[in-house]
Amino acid sequence: MSMSFELKQIGTIRTPYTDNAPYQPINNDKGEFRIVIDSAYAEGLHELDLFHYIYVIYYMHRIKRKESITVIPPWTGDMKVGLFASRAPVRPNPIGLSIVRVKRIINNEIFTSGLDVIDGTPLLDIKPYIKDLDSKCDANYGWIEKLEDREHLSLHIKGIPHDY
Amino acid sequence: MSMSFELKQIGTIRTPYTDNAPYQPINNDKGEFRIVIDSAYAEGLHELDLFHYIYVIYYMHRIKRKESITVIPPWTGDMKVGLFASRAPVRPNPIGLSIVRVKRIINNEIFTSGLDVIDGTPLLDIKPYIKDLDSKCDANYGWIEKLEDREHLSLHIKGIPHDY
Repeated sequence: MSMSFELKQIGTIRTPYTDNAPYQPINNDKGEFRIVIDSAYAEGLHELDLFHYIYVIYYMHRIKRKESITVIPPWTGDMKVGLFASRAPVRPNPIGLSIVRVKRIINNEIFTSGLDVIDGTPLLDIKPYIKDLDSKCDANYGWIEKLEDREHLSLHIKGIPHDY
Repeated sequence: MSMSFELKQIGTIRTPYTDNAPYQPINNDKGEFRIVIDSAYAEGLHELDLFHYIYVIYYMHRIKRKESITVIPPWTGDMKVGLFASRAPVRPNPIGLSIVRVKRIINNEIFTSGLDVIDGTPLLDIKPYIKDLDSKCDANYGWIEKLEDREHLSLHIKGIPHDY
């Protein structure tokens, strides 16, 4: 028996991207990246600025297409992988997850490093990114390791600009 | 203007915890941990087993209390932090996020390392945990670093059993 759940917007993400966002966060991207949390929740940010990184969880409100169960990720040639083995934004539940650096918090606003979302994206949650608990330094690249063009793809993953 | 969004259950998480779950995933916990995805999505798991780690995103359906904007996390004495600087399960949107190891995938079932959720928890999404993109090895402990009992707390964070 499947259920459905109602979630609510608790803030809004402001970015320079009005139409297309990058595939992943770009650390040094130009422009201002700001999470504006509803002022009723401002006190909930207390001590959050002590963390280097935070998780930002949001609702990808601009996604209108229906998901495919398998996808061909960008830059992979024609490799097909399962939707859940990808970070494609078109998913059964359009929940986005990004890790960003906290620069500063002023009242109900968190200024961050580059966020890979379109301006106006509704915020669902923020969680601290905690050393050891979240930083799995023995993680791997999964199916990306099978690609010939892996080095090139890793530049995209790391958000490093390049010309080829 | 705040909006609300409907999300749907896409599977069910099976764990040995019928009433109380641990605060964090325990890597070597006893019992079987299994994510059963609706069979319509089984093909979406293709190549997911190549990743060491995955994100599991779920709806904490057993949470009935209303959230507090500030919380006193366990084992911290009386330190009060903002809700969003904590991983407390009682949040405006009860979205849970856990990182677990993939052991094997058989049809529509993912067998994992210890998952810190109650048996029967509805699944919302699965994403691959990708090296570099997600493993921030310069992450820190935030406000936890201010605690005198930090070493002890880090055992809890890492899910290491101890008697004191």
